[in-house]
Amino acid sequence: MGMDEHTHGYIGNKDDYLKRLRRIEGQARGLQRMVEEEKYCIDILTQVSAMTKALQAVSLGLLEEHLSHCVVDAAKAGDDEEAQRKLREASDAIGRLVRS
Amino acid sequence: MGMDEHTHGYIGNKDDYLKRLRRIEGQARGLQRMVEEEKYCIDILTQVSAMTKALQAVSLGLLEEHLSHCVVDAAKAGDDEEAQRKLREASDAIGRLVRS
Amino acid sequence: MGMDEHTHGYIGNKDDYLKRLRRIEGQARGLQRMVEEEKYCIDILTQVSAMTKALQAVSLGLLEEHLSHCVVDAAKAGDDEEAQRKLREASDAIGRLVRS
Amino acid sequence: MGMDEHTHGYIGNKDDYLKRLRRIEGQARGLQRMVEEEKYCIDILTQVSAMTKALQAVSLGLLEEHLSHCVVDAAKAGDDEEAQRKLREASDAIGRLVRS
Repeated sequence: MGMDEHTHGYIGNKDDYLKRLRRIEGQARGLQRMVEEEKYCIDILTQVSAMTKALQAVSLGLLEEHLSHCVVDAAKAGDDEEAQRKLREASDAIGRLVRS
Repeated sequence: MGMDEHTHGYIGNKDDYLKRLRRIEGQARGLQRMVEEEKYCIDILTQVSAMTKALQAVSLGLLEEHLSHCVVDAAKAGDDEEAQRKLREASDAIGRLVRS
Repeated sequence: MGMDEHTHGYIGNKDDYLKRLRRIEGQARGLQRMVEEEKYCIDILTQVSAMTKALQAVSLGLLEEHLSHCVVDAAKAGDDEEAQRKLREASDAIGRLVRS
Repeated sequence: MGMDEHTHGYIGNKDDYLKRLRRIEGQARGLQRMVEEEKYCIDILTQVSAMTKALQAVSLGLLEEHLSHCVVDAAKAGDDEEAQRKLREASDAIGRLVRS
């Protein structure tokens, strides 16, 4: 984990990310209600896909912020090693995202 | 939505699905805390991937229950039209799952 | 591998699957040409995504055929064990498809 | 498409990418043989997943090369606009990759 002095790219959009994550939390509760009320499995699956897409959008946003701030800032500062390390972390995160 | 008299396959595992969805709800709250505390974006992305995998496992479970109960029951009852309709719904759900 | 007497569901659409797979083979050759000609990486990535989508469509088609023939035929024949075995295979295939 | 003077990141690994794409082309031919020989649908699906994974690895490699060369080079050269443009292209490519 890069405990470095520069602030993370996403901080500028912190409120937006919090709002989206609260909505995702609400979707998780909604799914519980559907199971409690024994709704049709296909309708629950439709809601799970909607929630997965919302999570995916959060991931793609965070990834873009990481690339355009953490990686680009390190490259502009001439810190090649730091830029490559943060790129390595981004590539691993992209791999996890693609396989999930 | 098939509001038919047979109970949905997943009802037998209702408590397990509720427990898993409560854990996913907790993960959503955990992500909000990480953003509140301005944690490193890559660490947040790692948690989002874990939550996505948990959701995926719920989907695959519900899908298998739908196939092995809703579809197979209709086929065994000789109701070809109903079996194909429920299969059609399953294929659409698989398509959404694959593209999400 | 289920070497059973009934023909597999997809055999009725064999020519269509062969045509789609030949096109996918052509896309693989097209990608080689783009790399040979040192095209821009983003343009190559766009073609790889198109090829992946074509492969995905083949998978979803084969899966639907497996479900609506192999699984439903076994269920209709009252062979619960065979139907559940083929369902188990379908669920594993869906899991691989979702994670790839 | 960025027809600019700098060479693309992947050129250094050109032979490796060509080798991997030839193998993928061979997998496409192998799938055609399986369909010709009317193999079991689940076995064909297993091979399609293997081919999809090989394609995914090519994508992740090209993406990493794009980021660590095209994006980082533009950032180091102080060309913010170019760096952001190439980042924008990378984010779109990641989005396509995640949804395919």
